Amino acid sequence: MDSCVTPLRHGGLSLVQTTDFIYPLVDDPYMMGKIACANVLSDLYALGVMECDNMLMLLGVSNKMTDKERDVIVPLMMRGFKDAAEEGGSSVNGGQTVMNPWLTIGGVATTVCQPNEYIMPDNAVVGDVLVLTKPLGTQVAVNAFQWLDQPERWNRIKLVVSEDDVRKAYQRAMFSMSRLNKTAARLMHKYNAHGATDVTGFGLLGHASNLAKVQKNEVSFVIHNLPIIAKMASVGKACGNMFKLMQGHSEETSGGLLIALPREQAAAFCKDIEKQEGYQAWIIGIVEKGNRTARIIDKPRVIEVPAKDKDGELW
Amino acid sequence: MDSCVTPLRHGGLSLVQTTDFIYPLVDDPYMMGKIACANVLSDLYALGVMECDNMLMLLGVSNKMTDKERDVIVPLMMRGFKDAAEEGGSSVNGGQTVMNPWLTIGGVATTVCQPNEYIMPDNAVVGDVLVLTKPLGTQVAVNAFQWLDQPERWNRIKLVVSEDDVRKAYQRAMFSMSRLNKTAARLMHKYNAHGATDVTGFGLLGHASNLAKVQKNEVSFVIHNLPIIAKMASVGKACGNMFKLMQGHSEETSGGLLIALPREQAAAFCKDIEKQEGYQAWIIGIVEKGNRTARIIDKPRVIEVPAKDKDGELW
Repeated sequence: MDSCVTPLRHGGLSLVQTTDFIYPLVDDPYMMGKIACANVLSDLYALGVMECDNMLMLLGVSNKMTDKERDVIVPLMMRGFKDAAEEGGSSVNGGQTVMNPWLTIGGVATTVCQPNEYIMPDNAVVGDVLVLTKPLGTQVAVNAFQWLDQPERWNRIKLVVSEDDVRKAYQRAMFSMSRLNKTAARLMHKYNAHGATDVTGFGLLGHASNLAKVQKNEVSFVIHNLPIIAKMASVGKACGNMFKLMQGHSEETSGGLLIALPREQAAAFCKDIEKQEGYQAWIIGIVEKGNRTARIIDKPRVIEVPAKDKDGELW
Repeated sequence: MDSCVTPLRHGGLSLVQTTDFIYPLVDDPYMMGKIACANVLSDLYALGVMECDNMLMLLGVSNKMTDKERDVIVPLMMRGFKDAAEEGGSSVNGGQTVMNPWLTIGGVATTVCQPNEYIMPDNAVVGDVLVLTKPLGTQVAVNAFQWLDQPERWNRIKLVVSEDDVRKAYQRAMFSMSRLNKTAARLMHKYNAHGATDVTGFGLLGHASNLAKVQKNEVSFVIHNLPIIAKMASVGKACGNMFKLMQGHSEETSGGLLIALPREQAAAFCKDIEKQEGYQAWIIGIVEKGNRTARIIDKPRVIEVPAKDKDGELW
């Protein structure tokens, strides 16, 4: 499970908590703070929890930064983190800052809630479909962007992608990672979700497998479609076996929710989230009878997800 | 304040949370885990909170350790952390492990409680006395122990301390740091404490000053006595200005609670804790009228605290 749920001593309430921290992966400190916060909150949202009562911020400040770098970068990261927390209706009270060789940022999200406020992830049934709320390929996009300054690497992919494509994909990845899964969490209630997880470090298939493993019913997940940030599928392929994006193993940061929904509600879910947020969600697979495993079919359909700016406009 | 207190949406309850992590300072991984946990819980105990509803463990595993080292050290540290959590009546559900250049261990302690379960730290009044529940000098002891293998350093202190003294002081420091402040927290209620803090990275005077600063009344803290692990005052002096132990600035890890208590209750508090735990607490200062500052008098009395083993026996 993405968060731990602990029954409390007080009348039917449960403590729902999660923690996560990450190393920098975008060059904008403010956006990095937002991403770190969205990444922590995402574990609550995967349980359909919409309220976060408190956040702690955990910061490791690199002892290799100059004073000047530190004074510029750290406050921006902290502001990004706090702004994202506020966007989620929460706030940051407490935390710790330490010196560390590597820069790290993360936090703890905690909520105290009644049983009807969260959705256990283990109720998928045969006939459900799987919805994904953010495109894949964030790590590929982040790496490709870094390679713009590394001719040796860049030469490997420049036949399949233009510099402009890479810059757009990177922007799309950055905004996607900083976007909260909160609306998705709310709609899980409205459309009777049977369980969800968020897609992060283990990639789509890793998290789908983990979700399949905990199911109460004898079900399996079969994934047919892979929505991927435009051109990143080609970049992934050009890099050989490096990312394993098509195999579902490419790492994501602050990825989408993967949600098992009743078939007849899934389309409405996708329509609703797009209407509210201006971002698409996709039906990517089905729930079959099976032995609690997940797989991607042999030749999955790649959905090229165009880069959009912050306001949802196509570039 | 040592923990953050956040009002909840549910009937009068508050969320009390704290987080802390540290770098290794003893050579026993199991004890290191216990110390890290005791250090986190201590922030709750400083508020008189006795129940911890959940703990998260945050682990940074050094990428410089060999596989063998990692496989031995990490499970021991985790067991120590979990055992200390259980000793505190809590348990560890959740957390995160990441690779990091430095080994780090820490966690998050969370409790949901009613207003009568915690004691705000800001009610000291003129005439109160200050009690300290663990001896000072943990950092000096840990450093002196490391210097046994560094002739250059050892030569600087060997005139004032024997190898045997250092080994005993180190053991005492290790057990002291791994001891929970839970009994002290319980007795804060019994003896009507007016506020407390725990003594850690800023040293005795740093934390006393922080506590003085938040007081509602116009008071100041004056410290007359310094209970210090036996011989460590001499070691501190022999090191010149390095530790500033006598000035109250020597860093402590998982130190004692510094508690403002009504004068007529303080002696009973000290007697009670010694009866229950076999470890002394000391009246170290007084609360005077003043401008919310703290100081140590010019020539404070040093109380040499003998080394004891785990069962409280004098060596």
